Amino acid sequence: MNIRIKWLRDQLKSMELEGMIVSNPVNVKYLTGLEEEGTLIVAPKENVFITDSRYIESVNNKLTIDDEIVAYDMRNMSKYDYEGFFMSCHDIGFEEKYVTYEVYKRYLQIYQVNLVETEGIIENHRIVKDEEEIGYIKKACEITDCAFEHIKKVLKYGITERELSFEIEKFMIENGADGVAFDTIVAFGENTSMPHAVPTNRKLQSGDIIQIDMGAQYKGYCSDFSRVLFIDEMKKEYEEVYDFVLEEQRKIVDSFKNGVNIKPIIKDRETDYHLKNFNVMHSFGHGVGMEIHEEPILSSKMDSFLKENAMIAIEPGVYKSGRFGIRIEDTYHITKNSCINLAKSGKNDIILSLKDRN
Amino acid sequence: MNIRIKWLRDQLKSMELEGMIVSNPVNVKYLTGLEEEGTLIVAPKENVFITDSRYIESVNNKLTIDDEIVAYDMRNMSKYDYEGFFMSCHDIGFEEKYVTYEVYKRYLQIYQVNLVETEGIIENHRIVKDEEEIGYIKKACEITDCAFEHIKKVLKYGITERELSFEIEKFMIENGADGVAFDTIVAFGENTSMPHAVPTNRKLQSGDIIQIDMGAQYKGYCSDFSRVLFIDEMKKEYEEVYDFVLEEQRKIVDSFKNGVNIKPIIKDRETDYHLKNFNVMHSFGHGVGMEIHEEPILSSKMDSFLKENAMIAIEPGVYKSGRFGIRIEDTYHITKNSCINLAKSGKNDIILSLKDRN
Repeated sequence: MNIRIKWLRDQLKSMELEGMIVSNPVNVKYLTGLEEEGTLIVAPKENVFITDSRYIESVNNKLTIDDEIVAYDMRNMSKYDYEGFFMSCHDIGFEEKYVTYEVYKRYLQIYQVNLVETEGIIENHRIVKDEEEIGYIKKACEITDCAFEHIKKVLKYGITERELSFEIEKFMIENGADGVAFDTIVAFGENTSMPHAVPTNRKLQSGDIIQIDMGAQYKGYCSDFSRVLFIDEMKKEYEEVYDFVLEEQRKIVDSFKNGVNIKPIIKDRETDYHLKNFNVMHSFGHGVGMEIHEEPILSSKMDSFLKENAMIAIEPGVYKSGRFGIRIEDTYHITKNSCINLAKSGKNDIILSLKDRN
Repeated sequence: MNIRIKWLRDQLKSMELEGMIVSNPVNVKYLTGLEEEGTLIVAPKENVFITDSRYIESVNNKLTIDDEIVAYDMRNMSKYDYEGFFMSCHDIGFEEKYVTYEVYKRYLQIYQVNLVETEGIIENHRIVKDEEEIGYIKKACEITDCAFEHIKKVLKYGITERELSFEIEKFMIENGADGVAFDTIVAFGENTSMPHAVPTNRKLQSGDIIQIDMGAQYKGYCSDFSRVLFIDEMKKEYEEVYDFVLEEQRKIVDSFKNGVNIKPIIKDRETDYHLKNFNVMHSFGHGVGMEIHEEPILSSKMDSFLKENAMIAIEPGVYKSGRFGIRIEDTYHITKNSCINLAKSGKNDIILSLKDRN
C-alpha cells in the first residue's frame, strides 16, 4: 500500500473512524495518483476506487498490485456492494468541505453508516510537501520567472490586457508548463484597482501601471507570482504604495520559518495598513501546491503555525478604488530557520521604457 | 427587477418558499449577470448580493438601479444582517446540488431558517434558451467549425496530441472565442479507446485514427463538437464502427423535436448497441449552455421531454478497449418540429492524406 494511504489509515484509527469516503478529486489524486473521476473508499478490508465506464480502462492501466486498490465499474455494482464496504461499521469519515448536501444524503442511503466530518485532515496533511513535490513547485516557479522576462520583452504600446494574458499563457505552455495554475490576471492603469480583474481590451499606454498575477502548473503543482511594472515613468502616488507593499512582504518573509504562529504577524501587518488608512482587501497569502489556494491561509483570525516544507505564496496588496492597485507576490519555501523565495525575478527594476519600441 | 429574478420569485411562491439562497456561481450569473464571487439572497423585501472586498467595487460598477439588487460587503456585515434577510420566514430554498454539507450547516446557523431542497429549479429553467443565448451558442459553434477546418490544414506526421490540442485552443481564442468550453481532447490511434483521453506526446503517424472533442466559449456560452479523422487510409474495422455511430446520431436527430420523450429513443439506441455487442460507455448527449454539461442528460433511465429552444449535444460513441474509439458530436437546436444542427462541418470527407505534406 502506498505511504499516503497508510498514513490516512493511521489517522482514521486515531480519530476512531473505521473508514473514509474520499470524494475530492485533488485528495484522491494525492492519495492514489489517479486523475480519473471517481470515489476512493478506504474500507476496513480494502481500498476501493469506484469509477465509471469512461475511466475504468485507464484506471486499470495505471493501478499496480502494489497500490492495493481495487477498481470498480459503477455499472456492475449492486446495492449490496455499496453496503458491503462498511459492513458492521458505525462511524465513517467524509469530506464535509467537498461533498454537497445532495451527495451527503445519497452516501447515507447507499453506505448505511454514520457519516462523520473529518475537518480537512487530508488538506492539512498536504500542507507539508515532500521532496518530489518541492521539485515540481520549484520548476513551476522557474517557468513563471521566465514568463516574466518574456513579458518585459513583448510589451509595447497598444497591446491589450487580453493579448498579453494570452501571450503569457502560451509562453508558459510552450516553455515546460503542463497548463496554467489559474486564469492569468493582466490589468492596465485604472483596471489594477480590482484585485481579481478579468483581462479586457484596454490598450497599454505611456504612464500606465501594469499588474500581472500568473501561475504555471507543472506535473500537477502550481506556482503563484505577481508583479507590477510602470511604463516609461512611475508616478509619485504609485511609488509610495509600491514601497509600502514591498516592505510589508519583506516583514512577513523576515518573520516566517518553521513553528512560527501566523496570526500575530498578520495582525501587525493589518495595523500597518490601518495606520496608512489602506483597506485590507484580501488575505496576505496562502499555501500553494496541487491547488493554487491551499491551507494555511495567512489570516489574523486564528492561531496557525507554519510547518517546515510548507510552500506559501505571500501577496500583500493595496487598492485605491477606481484609481490603481499594487500587489507583489512570490511563492516561498518554509524551512527550519527561514523562508526562501522560489521566484528569482527582481522587484526593483520596475520602470520599463517602451519609447524605442514602436 | 430583471425578468429572470422575477421568474424565480414566482416559482418560489408556487413552491411555498419565502425566499432562496442562490450559491452556484453559474446560476448567480444567469440571474444577475454578475461573475464576481458571492451569494444571491432572494429575500421577501429585497434582492441582496453578498460579496467580499475583492469584488465589491466591480459589482457596484455593474449593478444599476433597475437591477434592484443591493450589494453587501461581507466585512461590514453583522450576525443581525444575516438574520434580518429572512426575519420571521420559515422555509427558504437552497441549492442542495451545489452547497457542501459544511456550508449547509453554516447557512442553517447564520440565516436561522429551515432550508428546503429546490431540486435544480434554476438549472431546469436554463434548459430553454432565449434569442440572445441562442445567438451566442451559434457563434460558439461557428468557431469550432472554423477550428476544425484549421486542424485539417495543420495536421502532419509527427505532430503530438498535446501540440494539436494547444494549436486548437490558440486558434479558437484568436478567432473570436473568449476561452475554451473545456480542455480539448485530442487522441491518436489506440489512445482514442478512452472517451476522456488526456492529450499526450504520442505522435501522429500514417494509418492513425484521430479523435477530437472540443468546444469554444463565446460570451459565456459553450459549443460542443467531436469528429474523427483517418490519416491516409480508413481500416475496415474503423469503417464499420464509424458508420454505426453516424447512423445512431442520425436516428436520434431524426426523432428529436419539441415535446418528445427522450427515454424511449435512447432505449432503442441502447438496443442497437447490445445487438452489435458494443458497450454504452457514456450518455448519448446533454444540454449545452453556460455550462458544457447541462440538463437534460440523454438517458434511458427516466422520462424527460424535449423543449423548444433547448440546445443539445448529441454524441454517440463506441470504444474498443485498447484498440480505438469513435465518437461523433454536434450541438443541435431543438425547434417545434425538428432538431437543427448548429455545426456545419461534414461527416463524410474523413480520410485525410498527409503524404504530400512533410
